[in-house]
Amino acid sequence: MATEESSATVDDHTDRGYTATKEDLLKRLRRLEGQVRGVERMVEEDRYCIDVVTQITAIQAALDKVALRLLEDHANHCIIGGDPAAADERTHELMAAVKRLMRHG
Amino acid sequence: MATEESSATVDDHTDRGYTATKEDLLKRLRRLEGQVRGVERMVEEDRYCIDVVTQITAIQAALDKVALRLLEDHANHCIIGGDPAAADERTHELMAAVKRLMRHG
Amino acid sequence: MATEESSATVDDHTDRGYTATKEDLLKRLRRLEGQVRGVERMVEEDRYCIDVVTQITAIQAALDKVALRLLEDHANHCIIGGDPAAADERTHELMAAVKRLMRHG
Amino acid sequence: MATEESSATVDDHTDRGYTATKEDLLKRLRRLEGQVRGVERMVEEDRYCIDVVTQITAIQAALDKVALRLLEDHANHCIIGGDPAAADERTHELMAAVKRLMRHG
Repeated sequence: MATEESSATVDDHTDRGYTATKEDLLKRLRRLEGQVRGVERMVEEDRYCIDVVTQITAIQAALDKVALRLLEDHANHCIIGGDPAAADERTHELMAAVKRLMRHG
Repeated sequence: MATEESSATVDDHTDRGYTATKEDLLKRLRRLEGQVRGVERMVEEDRYCIDVVTQITAIQAALDKVALRLLEDHANHCIIGGDPAAADERTHELMAAVKRLMRHG
Repeated sequence: MATEESSATVDDHTDRGYTATKEDLLKRLRRLEGQVRGVERMVEEDRYCIDVVTQITAIQAALDKVALRLLEDHANHCIIGGDPAAADERTHELMAAVKRLMRHG
Repeated sequence: MATEESSATVDDHTDRGYTATKEDLLKRLRRLEGQVRGVERMVEEDRYCIDVVTQITAIQAALDKVALRLLEDHANHCIIGGDPAAADERTHELMAAVKRLMRHG
């Protein structure tokens, strides 16, 4: 996987922006995993190209929602509720993530 | 899954735009499935929010590539190489898929 | 302006994919020019940041529509209705434009 | 123009997130206005469709930059530096703007 290196010190079992909604988040991700498998099946069954692309679009919409949710939780928890001294850098980091998300890379 | 209903008659085992590159396509999709599982693991391990979003962005970039590849194969195979009488409708369908892909829905 | 260099031989006064809808296209572009001036005015009047961004979003939606329309006209006129020997290259060019449009660069 | 109605009370001549960089912002917007006029000229001169789309893509990249800059200034000035009691609502508003910007509408 590409960019797992962290832009902040990662200490295990820390409280995160998404901790309160972790179970819901994992449920969404498992559903997404199933959707990707669904696309594999469509390709194996030689389904119509445009229908495969439509399914991929649905996956991207679901990924958008997960990413925006994570960023909103992050903003609430790590910027507003976090260390005021770090708020400036955290905001910059948030906007950099938004920029990458908008262009997918 | 949301929109598996096809916008064209689907007959099984038909030759598709992606038939020639089907194995490569399936390999990419399996890698994507692994990347989604990687994000689940990151959430389970309470990894830093921004790093999770960065991984989601990488998945979206990979999905873009798969979708654009499918659309290009479709254009070459089903529009240029296909039934000329259907070319107009197929082009309209292609551009509708591009539009949905650009906005993710 | 950045990339006016053409990826195809440009001979003046040629029939283009958008020739039939040129007047409508110009009307949309003039409206867009007015919308950009509207944003300048908002900034001059110190309007609320989020409202300025909302207006920029409206401009981008209008630009998307113009770009997709141009690409669809191009596909109909230059790929389907054009020289069959050039169809392959034209399709590749179309998909490259779609890719740039999706990522804005 | 579509959505000029403000989602917050707008009082004239208030200090905004972009006040410090207002001149730079106006310069960028005037350049954008010129770029839109450039596209009009390309259409009037019947330039090649794909080249027109390429110019539109350049305008959208420039608009992205302006919007992201406005949002970052907003985050720094109105969320971090603003009234703590309003930080929660302002963050929600920021993420809603990001969401609209990602989908252009």
